[in-house]
Amino acid sequence: MTELEWLKKIYPYLGKSFKNEDCAVIKTGHKYFLFTTDALVEGVHFHLSYFNYYNIGYKLGAINLSDIAAGGGTPLWALLNLGTKEISEKTIEFFEGLYTCLKNAGAQIIGGDTVKSSVFFCSLTLIGETKYPLLRKGAKVGDLIFVSKPLGESAAFLRFIKEKDLNEIPENLKTAHLKPIPEIELGKRLSELKIPSSCIDISDGLVLDLSRICEENGLGAILWQEKIPIGAEATFEEALYGGEDYALLFTVPKENVDKLKKLEKMLKKELFCIGQLIKENKIYLEEGDKFVPLKKQGFDHFAK
Amino acid sequence: MTELEWLKKIYPYLGKSFKNEDCAVIKTGHKYFLFTTDALVEGVHFHLSYFNYYNIGYKLGAINLSDIAAGGGTPLWALLNLGTKEISEKTIEFFEGLYTCLKNAGAQIIGGDTVKSSVFFCSLTLIGETKYPLLRKGAKVGDLIFVSKPLGESAAFLRFIKEKDLNEIPENLKTAHLKPIPEIELGKRLSELKIPSSCIDISDGLVLDLSRICEENGLGAILWQEKIPIGAEATFEEALYGGEDYALLFTVPKENVDKLKKLEKMLKKELFCIGQLIKENKIYLEEGDKFVPLKKQGFDHFAK
Repeated sequence: MTELEWLKKIYPYLGKSFKNEDCAVIKTGHKYFLFTTDALVEGVHFHLSYFNYYNIGYKLGAINLSDIAAGGGTPLWALLNLGTKEISEKTIEFFEGLYTCLKNAGAQIIGGDTVKSSVFFCSLTLIGETKYPLLRKGAKVGDLIFVSKPLGESAAFLRFIKEKDLNEIPENLKTAHLKPIPEIELGKRLSELKIPSSCIDISDGLVLDLSRICEENGLGAILWQEKIPIGAEATFEEALYGGEDYALLFTVPKENVDKLKKLEKMLKKELFCIGQLIKENKIYLEEGDKFVPLKKQGFDHFAK
Repeated sequence: MTELEWLKKIYPYLGKSFKNEDCAVIKTGHKYFLFTTDALVEGVHFHLSYFNYYNIGYKLGAINLSDIAAGGGTPLWALLNLGTKEISEKTIEFFEGLYTCLKNAGAQIIGGDTVKSSVFFCSLTLIGETKYPLLRKGAKVGDLIFVSKPLGESAAFLRFIKEKDLNEIPENLKTAHLKPIPEIELGKRLSELKIPSSCIDISDGLVLDLSRICEENGLGAILWQEKIPIGAEATFEEALYGGEDYALLFTVPKENVDKLKKLEKMLKKELFCIGQLIKENKIYLEEGDKFVPLKKQGFDHFAK
């Protein structure tokens, strides 16, 4: 069974608050709580040959923060589950990495459970809040597509590490894969200013995550080849299909582009307009005067 | 490093909202949110020789609900992390067990993450709410100690399963270990009526969990041997030290005992008064005219 088939099977069991979003969104009073959870497993999501425990903890924080960023939220509280053979200095290093990453984003660890396990695993549940949640749903034909950083560096790291020692790998690739920077500040501002019509974080690759936005809204997209920002040392393929970028991918109605330009200046952060939503339910790459249909491929651990 | 040493190491990193309680308690507006998380790992917390997947899911729900019960909460929302080799019919059975257990308690699953793992593990984060949280802290000398059900059956199950087939084991022991019943209704009523001065759920054994109440309040306790309710087929040792009872253990100021008696009648549920809190920071068993000091022993997966 693939992950998608599994999700279809369990949909009937999920609460009415479950939507196909980065976070579960629940209204209480005048604001919304955002809930997300993500896990990392040794040998599946990371290898100890190139991940130290500090980085595992840091990355666990970052991938969960990235979901809250995609929801336009302010991260508040985290609960940790940790499975480990033994508790040692390494477990403390892990915890310091997690703590540091969450603290930088203003979140605190309020609880957890540590259990014995022959395989090291960790999962975090992170709760945030927002007045205006950003959702995958809401995009319209003609909205422009933006990404928040150059893409493909995390995937390029995995290509480099097959052949090189960790200390021979360019810093930007190491940061992208080992200590990704979640777009918390950007997500909060986009939400406050109500700029995007939809938002998602790129965790499984630009094309796959864009296809999620498209499916949720019954639309398609054109990507402009020359506008897609490619990380230094990464390939165009990696920018399109590589996972774990943790950039925000969001759509903006044309009338909000001026507001976005002002935000760009204020944050001193370049945002990249890479395409536009279309009516036809397909994703095309515009290369010069050609339109090449792209496959919605991406990563599924459970696919055979 | 033992679990207790680990907790001491990480205390400095924990948010100011972290207290040594069954749940993290956070005030928002006129009520409190309760947050808890607990994990189960194959080969550590259960063996597939006697646990089917439905029961694993059910138990994951129950152990988390028990923490919300101990906080006096109404369970609301759950997020699941699941690590599994493959997604199959068994994974669906697991999900049905979890769903059923949570639904019976009024909680819904709002999100989750399924990841590949060579060892089956699952963790749940459960969020509840209450107007009056029940805490470990608050007990006073002279308060009476109550438990909510006969003890030791879950530990007795583990003794039986070493020698017998599952179908030869008495039903009450199977239920106690495989499908424990969390005390949600009792916890809610105790909270509404503000009866207890402190409350905890017995997950690591009566004496160990009582010692946590005692330590939190700088007190000790006397347990009355003949009053401790022992589950059918369980031994007195198992009632004192066996884990995974998921009973509520709570202390009641004498002036609230009448209210408790009324609640007992209303719920048609027997509650057991088993001892009293004392000033001296030790736990004694009163056997006839003797007072035997009890060791604060219990289960720690990480102890050498």
